[in-house]
Amino acid sequence: MGEFELIRRIRDAAGGGEGTCLGIGDDAAILEIPAGLQAVVTTDTLNAGVHFFPDADAGDIGYKALAVNLSDLAAMGAAPRWALLSLSMPEFDMDFAGQLVDGLLGLAREHGVVLAGGDTCAGPLSVTVTAIGVVEAGRALTRAGARPGDLVVVSGTPGLAAAALRQLQAGAEPAAAAARALRRPAPRVVLGAALVGKASACIDISDGLLADLGHILDASACGATLEPDQLPVHEALAEYGDTRRWRLQLTGGDDYELCFTLPPDTASMLEGGRGAGEPALSVIGTVGRQAGVRCRTAAGELFDPGGAGYEHFT
Amino acid sequence: MGEFELIRRIRDAAGGGEGTCLGIGDDAAILEIPAGLQAVVTTDTLNAGVHFFPDADAGDIGYKALAVNLSDLAAMGAAPRWALLSLSMPEFDMDFAGQLVDGLLGLAREHGVVLAGGDTCAGPLSVTVTAIGVVEAGRALTRAGARPGDLVVVSGTPGLAAAALRQLQAGAEPAAAAARALRRPAPRVVLGAALVGKASACIDISDGLLADLGHILDASACGATLEPDQLPVHEALAEYGDTRRWRLQLTGGDDYELCFTLPPDTASMLEGGRGAGEPALSVIGTVGRQAGVRCRTAAGELFDPGGAGYEHFT
Repeated sequence: MGEFELIRRIRDAAGGGEGTCLGIGDDAAILEIPAGLQAVVTTDTLNAGVHFFPDADAGDIGYKALAVNLSDLAAMGAAPRWALLSLSMPEFDMDFAGQLVDGLLGLAREHGVVLAGGDTCAGPLSVTVTAIGVVEAGRALTRAGARPGDLVVVSGTPGLAAAALRQLQAGAEPAAAAARALRRPAPRVVLGAALVGKASACIDISDGLLADLGHILDASACGATLEPDQLPVHEALAEYGDTRRWRLQLTGGDDYELCFTLPPDTASMLEGGRGAGEPALSVIGTVGRQAGVRCRTAAGELFDPGGAGYEHFT
Repeated sequence: MGEFELIRRIRDAAGGGEGTCLGIGDDAAILEIPAGLQAVVTTDTLNAGVHFFPDADAGDIGYKALAVNLSDLAAMGAAPRWALLSLSMPEFDMDFAGQLVDGLLGLAREHGVVLAGGDTCAGPLSVTVTAIGVVEAGRALTRAGARPGDLVVVSGTPGLAAAALRQLQAGAEPAAAAARALRRPAPRVVLGAALVGKASACIDISDGLLADLGHILDASACGATLEPDQLPVHEALAEYGDTRRWRLQLTGGDDYELCFTLPPDTASMLEGGRGAGEPALSVIGTVGRQAGVRCRTAAGELFDPGGAGYEHFT
């Protein structure tokens, strides 16, 4: 049993369908982008010991490797269509590889994503996924476009993944919701699509809310005032007092929620119910002209969250 | 100086142009595939200590990481357009990363390829490139389509990279042409495009000529007879007698030449001169009905090349 057998197994399970003219099994995949749509492409790597614990569940690794890429597509408002998987393993382990691929394909099926190709090779455990989606020409969300007066909105509960990571590092068992946010974050694909034509700018907050909002503001030549009291509370964060929770939620990474800006004339999308399984949306601040981000508490005091955002090398 | 600074440097050097609606600097790139064309996508990883020596030149690593992917696109007859780069490094080294990116961008410019996005992170030294090309709808070359009576053709001199690798492993200095084949293989992009509408099947011989021809024959439900005497000789392989040279050329990997099958009615493309810098083409056998590959010498004897092709885990 070797690489070719694994490729055969993946090919049988990978799915196919409209637009996938040629999938796994040749030198490259052939994809059809329908007229009027643009291709949206992104790639991200997860390395053992850096992005996941070396003894992490193989299915979780595969799920998350796709999820972080679908999250990038969601931030552009794109509908995900295809993924490529490049898997490095120190020694060929069919069980491990099979579980990893199953985790990836489970999420892929949820979103109608076809695994169209990839590569397996020897090397330290590492997973790189490339995701390809489509969006109506000229309609993708970007980081640029926020304007003074726009609302700053975040989905879900930022900080859960960072809380789970700290608890695991301290030898504690995180709450289920926090563990799920770290191991199997739900990419906000449905929300991203719903924001097309409504949000003025959007990003996923993989590097931490403050750092990623900073990317929007830099690209949009604006600043913002945030109200940390508006950050969503969650029972999995109950052990933290407000100030420590705010810091975690503003600077912890690995969230894969969407942060976006909403002009006043489309803010009505915040009213009414959200679909089942869809994240709550919290208005946490306002875009302004003055560069930089200021955090102001409900008591009117300035709050310094500390930290300067997340770089992958520190 | 950190990851964000590197991304800025890459963005400034990465180029842009027609079809690249949004390049480096957002959550994903936005690409326009012109009407009537299909997207052709592939991804390949190079790991330190597996695919290149740990002390390899950074520029060579970057060049080759793109070259092996462009080679896959060439095997489909696709014109390369974009690349994504995912780079893992144990510690952030701006000089190394800059040289690696320069090596990649040098080859990218040769082929009009735009570096449209990517990812840098901490981890064992590893480079994953995703390449995206375009081909006229329905005209891509695949592994399927070879028919009995077709000629089996190979470009360039297979075996050079394997010879260089063996010499380096033995502490010897390989001949310049062999070293170049190992470190900076030229992807056969122009040849691949010229084969569209002419070749019945095509593959790049990264895994070794015999193994990769085997993929064509499996996909085409055919077999082949090869004449090893027709394999091209090269002064960099002069130290090998015929039999050892044939083995190297038939089973050595890492070649990135194209192996293709040519129906008798398009065989005229083999006549006449080839463009400057374009590889010679050698007819090395014939497709037949009987499954498997038989090698027959000019003296009429069967020749067993040994080896069963290259799997990345052995």
